Amino acid sequence: MKIEVYPTCDSVKDLSGKTAIVIDVLRATSVITTALFNGSKSVIPVLSVDDALNLAGEYEGGALLGGERGGVKIPGFDLGNSPLEYKKELVAGKTVILTTSNGTRAIKASESAEHVLIGCFLNASAVAEKALELASRSESPCVVVVCAGTLGEFSLDDAACAGLIVDYLASILEREKETSKFSDLAFACRELFLKYQNDLKALISHAAHYRRLVRLGFERDIDYCLQMDVIDCVPVYDRKTSEVKIGS
Amino acid sequence: MKIEVYPTCDSVKDLSGKTAIVIDVLRATSVITTALFNGSKSVIPVLSVDDALNLAGEYEGGALLGGERGGVKIPGFDLGNSPLEYKKELVAGKTVILTTSNGTRAIKASESAEHVLIGCFLNASAVAEKALELASRSESPCVVVVCAGTLGEFSLDDAACAGLIVDYLASILEREKETSKFSDLAFACRELFLKYQNDLKALISHAAHYRRLVRLGFERDIDYCLQMDVIDCVPVYDRKTSEVKIGS
Repeated sequence: MKIEVYPTCDSVKDLSGKTAIVIDVLRATSVITTALFNGSKSVIPVLSVDDALNLAGEYEGGALLGGERGGVKIPGFDLGNSPLEYKKELVAGKTVILTTSNGTRAIKASESAEHVLIGCFLNASAVAEKALELASRSESPCVVVVCAGTLGEFSLDDAACAGLIVDYLASILEREKETSKFSDLAFACRELFLKYQNDLKALISHAAHYRRLVRLGFERDIDYCLQMDVIDCVPVYDRKTSEVKIGS
Repeated sequence: MKIEVYPTCDSVKDLSGKTAIVIDVLRATSVITTALFNGSKSVIPVLSVDDALNLAGEYEGGALLGGERGGVKIPGFDLGNSPLEYKKELVAGKTVILTTSNGTRAIKASESAEHVLIGCFLNASAVAEKALELASRSESPCVVVVCAGTLGEFSLDDAACAGLIVDYLASILEREKETSKFSDLAFACRELFLKYQNDLKALISHAAHYRRLVRLGFERDIDYCLQMDVIDCVPVYDRKTSEVKIGS
């Protein structure tokens, strides 16, 4: 089993035959995971505000519009990019059309993969297990963790989460006595996570993206997003329908 | 002072006004540093074997051809990409035209910078000092460490060297009580280096590129390239002449 990590959406290459885990810890993939856990029917990631508005107009049965630009809610949208907004009473049974600066781009950039899963600290263990299960059916098994990064740059929050997921993958593979091969960045992210696993916030506070979110008043979001393994569902992106739903 | 790190040549953005340190530890920037330390007049990095052959044909006074493809010496070239080949008796007073898979691409990718310095473990401390000196004259001072990476991927050997250089920069800035801002990747590379500073080879042995070089029989090169601060000269790339020479 090969384990790879890409640092940003722009760095993603052809993922044919691979199982991808897309992460944008702060905050898009934490939002998607939370919305689906809270009963949302599906989340549809789109690249632009125009695409979101057009799709909402066509959407039968109505859909909620969610997302951010520059970290803040888009004017006229129902929801921003704070996972704490995606409460059961608002999202249960609803479809959410979501556009964010980094996370939705990372999902689209991973479309060539055989499977595209959505991961974050909240569901790290569940997504690692699911990814291994799917990848092991492939002829040349490979799990790729795609970090969204921040505006095209490597981001410590995503790297730390990639490190946790790599650590889970490594532990399972070791237990099952499977041979494995980690890319250089997979190794580096795991080292980073292991060093800070008991004080994630001390690590994340060095991230430029963290400082930006704190300035915007989103510190509670950060505390929420750094919780490990509190959600056991795994969102799966279906490139045919462009929808993210809970995997079976 | 801002300190940034780019993981690969492909990830490099506009570096206008910045001071760049290009590193390809295994082995191009270790070769350039060694050749110039051993008295080579200049090194001219070029992208392709064709460019190298054409330039050598035009070059008055003759030049040595050096470089690799797939890690091994290019047929008909005088020298490969092993720093141990670049001995005084061969290179003193000579110009070397060099083409390699990653390092020469990283130098060309950094051409938009105000200053382009060549760094590696061998001259890490010297190149860090020189970079700060040059960057501090700029209106918005910024040192960027450009890792060549390996075939478009993040490489642990370059990341570790970037971490050492960032650590030197941080120490000098702290001593001089200068405010500084480190990018996420600069922070991560420094952490990685600090964890393994007493056993660099234990870290580098996890690099895919390390395993490839060992398979090709270049383990002595690796031991040579991992020596810290044994050379105090700083090669500087002049984009007008496309030559790398010892900086004044």
